[in-house]
Amino acid sequence: MLQTKIEIRIRYAETDMMGFAHHGNYAAWFELARVRMMDEFGYPYREMESDGFHLPVLEMHTRFQRSVTFDDIVAVEATLREKPSARVRIEYRVLREDREVASGSTLHAFINTEGRPVRPPRRFSRGMEAVFAKRPD
Amino acid sequence: MLQTKIEIRIRYAETDMMGFAHHGNYAAWFELARVRMMDEFGYPYREMESDGFHLPVLEMHTRFQRSVTFDDIVAVEATLREKPSARVRIEYRVLREDREVASGSTLHAFINTEGRPVRPPRRFSRGMEAVFAKRPD
Amino acid sequence: MLQTKIEIRIRYAETDMMGFAHHGNYAAWFELARVRMMDEFGYPYREMESDGFHLPVLEMHTRFQRSVTFDDIVAVEATLREKPSARVRIEYRVLREDREVASGSTLHAFINTEGRPVRPPRRFSRGMEAVFAKRPD
Amino acid sequence: MLQTKIEIRIRYAETDMMGFAHHGNYAAWFELARVRMMDEFGYPYREMESDGFHLPVLEMHTRFQRSVTFDDIVAVEATLREKPSARVRIEYRVLREDREVASGSTLHAFINTEGRPVRPPRRFSRGMEAVFAKRPD
Repeated sequence: MLQTKIEIRIRYAETDMMGFAHHGNYAAWFELARVRMMDEFGYPYREMESDGFHLPVLEMHTRFQRSVTFDDIVAVEATLREKPSARVRIEYRVLREDREVASGSTLHAFINTEGRPVRPPRRFSRGMEAVFAKRPD
Repeated sequence: MLQTKIEIRIRYAETDMMGFAHHGNYAAWFELARVRMMDEFGYPYREMESDGFHLPVLEMHTRFQRSVTFDDIVAVEATLREKPSARVRIEYRVLREDREVASGSTLHAFINTEGRPVRPPRRFSRGMEAVFAKRPD
Repeated sequence: MLQTKIEIRIRYAETDMMGFAHHGNYAAWFELARVRMMDEFGYPYREMESDGFHLPVLEMHTRFQRSVTFDDIVAVEATLREKPSARVRIEYRVLREDREVASGSTLHAFINTEGRPVRPPRRFSRGMEAVFAKRPD
Repeated sequence: MLQTKIEIRIRYAETDMMGFAHHGNYAAWFELARVRMMDEFGYPYREMESDGFHLPVLEMHTRFQRSVTFDDIVAVEATLREKPSARVRIEYRVLREDREVASGSTLHAFINTEGRPVRPPRRFSRGMEAVFAKRPD
């Protein structure tokens, strides 16, 4: 399992006239946690793109349990629970003061710079093998 | 059933360095179609908010089937299929040249200006009664 | 002189908790008017980019005279007043019900796909020659 | 003089298809630095709004000297150079690896919750008196 937690402080520009953070921003927050997870995994997103791979979002699901607003400090936790095959599924939790305020998931697949579906880069697959290797009993 | 279709032209600001519209923008596009649907239904969102009601998003699900990019003209179709009770569920399709490129749904509930869950405004409920009234045989 | 006017309806996602459209959105609105101006000029931005040219913003100035909010319909007018040389200067006015609510300008220069400053594409220069040609007396 | 420096890591969602951070994002970055400056000044923006005051942007000017992109870490420095009267002027510099990549300024005035221009809140004025008090020789 891979798990990363980041902290963000909600921007004024991210609020809407209802007084809360607009729900459209969670995509960027999930992405921030996902990018950091890739950093910690050892294959930064930036390097992956220089290698000619992109990891677009095929599906995104979000449940908004409690609203958050300007200046709130929230933690965004990204979890990669199962060894990815052709598809990569990542789960997210958003917490404010240790209480879950939203949760969600994204599903991804690799494409090349021409936009065609491709196998995961070897550096990615090998790293995942290592992460999900069976522990010796 | 209520159904509305709007057309949008994708903004340069909505693209990302992958060369496509960033997936975070679909929330705003769905919202545009939802707002227009409320206009056509006869209870504009703006009036609903002046009446003291908000309709935040509780859940959002999106499937991104094909990428779209700058200057593409896409249609966003919002459909309210079942008579809403305490919760309002709306489905969406995004089409480019009549081909579905994304689909999704949002789930909503009414809150008042203090953020507390409330029953739907009467104007909304009555209008929905009329829309979903059984046709005489 | 080149002049183009577009109409936009302000998105809920563009508002902030002050209750108005966040000032960060005007960059995208100016861009929408600029893109449409290039369409009308006969060299769509999309084609210019396929030809290997980009037109990034070097400077942007905006005066916000009156606030606008969700659902407001505003006109955004882009004006290219002088024949562009290496630099392209465009002015903007934002109007609601024919009253100016904001104004601004952007300054641009052409770069190639490697990010290096280059001369304007010939198609652009020739078109501008035609637009700004002295009228015969 | 008041001066605050924050660090931000550029989000993927903030890039555009040119491959750089879209110029529309600088408004939010300047705002982040401005908000932090108010925190350090001792009158957090959030408290100021609870007190019934808003500080909208009347003007914004930006010069974009060098492009920045995804994952770049940039410093945003906000400076309040002169004691504000009815109007508050703040200057900004954006730096990457200690090199200026953009600069700008915003001009603000206080309004109340009805949107009417008002004098600065006393807590703000007094704090500014203290900051800009003449040093005894």
